[in-house]
Amino acid sequence: MNTYDIAVIPGDGIGKEVVPAALRCLEAVADIHGGLKWNWTFFPWNCEYYLQHGEMMPEDGIATLKQFDQIFLGAVGMPELVPDHISLWGLLVRIRRECEQSINVRPAKLLRGLESPLRNPEPFDFVVVRENSEGEYSQAGGAIHSDEDELVVQNAIFTRRQTAKAMKYAFELAAERRHSVVSATKSNGIVHSMPFWDRVFGEVGAAYPDAAARSVHIDALCAYLVMRPQQFDVIVASNLFGDILTDLGGAIMGSIGIAPAANLNVERKYPSMFEPVHGSAPDIAGKGLANPIGQIWTAKQMLDFIGLPELGELVLGAIEDSLAAGVKTRDLGGSATTEEAVSDILARLYRRGK
Amino acid sequence: MNTYDIAVIPGDGIGKEVVPAALRCLEAVADIHGGLKWNWTFFPWNCEYYLQHGEMMPEDGIATLKQFDQIFLGAVGMPELVPDHISLWGLLVRIRRECEQSINVRPAKLLRGLESPLRNPEPFDFVVVRENSEGEYSQAGGAIHSDEDELVVQNAIFTRRQTAKAMKYAFELAAERRHSVVSATKSNGIVHSMPFWDRVFGEVGAAYPDAAARSVHIDALCAYLVMRPQQFDVIVASNLFGDILTDLGGAIMGSIGIAPAANLNVERKYPSMFEPVHGSAPDIAGKGLANPIGQIWTAKQMLDFIGLPELGELVLGAIEDSLAAGVKTRDLGGSATTEEAVSDILARLYRRGK
Ligand SMILES: CC(C)[C@H](C(=O)O)[C@@H](O)C(=O)O
Ligand SMILES: CC(C)[C@H](C(=O)O)[C@@H](O)C(=O)O
Repeated sequence: MNTYDIAVIPGDGIGKEVVPAALRCLEAVADIHGGLKWNWTFFPWNCEYYLQHGEMMPEDGIATLKQFDQIFLGAVGMPELVPDHISLWGLLVRIRRECEQSINVRPAKLLRGLESPLRNPEPFDFVVVRENSEGEYSQAGGAIHSDEDELVVQNAIFTRRQTAKAMKYAFELAAERRHSVVSATKSNGIVHSMPFWDRVFGEVGAAYPDAAARSVHIDALCAYLVMRPQQFDVIVASNLFGDILTDLGGAIMGSIGIAPAANLNVERKYPSMFEPVHGSAPDIAGKGLANPIGQIWTAKQMLDFIGLPELGELVLGAIEDSLAAGVKTRDLGGSATTEEAVSDILARLYRRGK
Repeated sequence: MNTYDIAVIPGDGIGKEVVPAALRCLEAVADIHGGLKWNWTFFPWNCEYYLQHGEMMPEDGIATLKQFDQIFLGAVGMPELVPDHISLWGLLVRIRRECEQSINVRPAKLLRGLESPLRNPEPFDFVVVRENSEGEYSQAGGAIHSDEDELVVQNAIFTRRQTAKAMKYAFELAAERRHSVVSATKSNGIVHSMPFWDRVFGEVGAAYPDAAARSVHIDALCAYLVMRPQQFDVIVASNLFGDILTDLGGAIMGSIGIAPAANLNVERKYPSMFEPVHGSAPDIAGKGLANPIGQIWTAKQMLDFIGLPELGELVLGAIEDSLAAGVKTRDLGGSATTEEAVSDILARLYRRGK
């Protein structure tokens, strides 16, 4: 029996609805497999916790998490209660950094059964490899206050170590796929960090002569994702650009609610964290309307990462079967509830698993 | 006779093809109007000029430009010949800054006769007001070199003066439109500049109680532009975010090749610069295939700015008539050449002008 100890953080808003849904799918997968066991340990760290304790997690929170094999997270943030930069930097961003999850892998793919908001798109299937630990998301900076003349500096910090690591990951991934890597840049406007980014991309890429490598400015790249997403295979991007590209990836798939993500500690020294692209969606939270697919597809990424890709395929297959049968939540133009969507996916998982 | 002295910089690549096309439309407009005269003065400042002179424009280039009423620019950049950050910061960005064109106004609208790459979009019509002089585009920053440990810092610099100016412009514009202003932020990830941006937005917005004002994170905002662009009226954005949103705006209109832009010196102390969203497109340059509409629609923005909005409407009407008649360049899925497109628009301009 293979046992996995998973730290589960449902978080805020719809995180609390979609995480249980995805855990049921992971339990079903264990059932089907027979030799796989999940040990879930739940952590109630979220904005309510913050309001009670004045912090998003206890002092030894990170040390606690590091004892687990992996972390399964819903979503964090309740801007009405706690400013985003406190809740997110106190939990999500903090775990990404302190557990050295320096690569965020975010696939985008036109699923069977889904209608893209794009007119007749060709089938697309690309993966954004996002640098996840530095860049534009930086606590360095500050303000000079004097009314009219107030001035704020925000430092973006890029290291060769992390930049090259994300790029290597992208090229390795492309070697198993369609051998194409596009780097998201903006070196024509951002004149220190982005020319550096381009230079490292050239150097890393030189070790992969079989890959077609090119740089595209982020503005044009966003436009291309709308005009011809089928042209992309692997895209490597900075923290901010990766964030933007993957919400856009969600949109062209049909809904941000289905987009998955994996925050990887590629060295496997610390746990990785599996957390979908979407946020806590306070507007629809508590109504049972959230789309569970982003979280379930994210569970597939966890299965892939722990070395069970056949089970991962099973999950994605069941998601697609369910969509193709027309079981869709509101964000996808349907009327299914979260419960209806997950029940249907579960049934199809068992059917496929036989 | 109202005479306007215009500095014309065709620039590089397709700039040299679409600028003459747009000038023919402006001449036609003068013809139709009767009491309007253009004095064009051409400046050959581009990458070839750089290769000959070692700089993108002569030392007194800015002083020269400041003697004109307005500047009409095509596109700059030939990355194969001159690194982008040299050509663009030596000309485009430099003029924006030294002529204090601190607001970049970029409309996006579903034109009559055009098919959006979006499936059945509702008609949309929004304007991005982009802060044009600071923010993420900054020459402050630098590198610490030591191989593996190389580290690069890029400073983004936001002042209250420029931030508030862009926001005020956005609210004033919304007051003449549909009274809605969305601010593009990312204060959950970028924790110094963007919370500042949000704060100034709240303060400026307080003076406009009739406007519906809200902040949306740039990642979600990009997704919304694909999912429901009709919801937006005025969007105010930083230099980088405005850049990204407007290429995306071009894409959902049908082509970046049609998206217009105006770099405004709102104080009218120095000339403003009219320059489309698209770049020099070296791949199709010199073939007569470029779409002239971005440049012609940009000419409409110049007409609006100098106080001739009826003539601006005439130009946009002629563009739409031509598209509705199916005259489309390749980027729009047609087969018209630049010459065919502009001839058709000219004919329709005269027809409307009668
Ligand atoms: C060429 C580049 C510096 C420029 C910008 O990002 O400002 C362009 O993309 C634009 O949008 O005008
Ligand atoms: C909530 C926010 C800080 C986060 C990010 O930008 O990283 C989210 O948008 C994401 O994409 O995971």
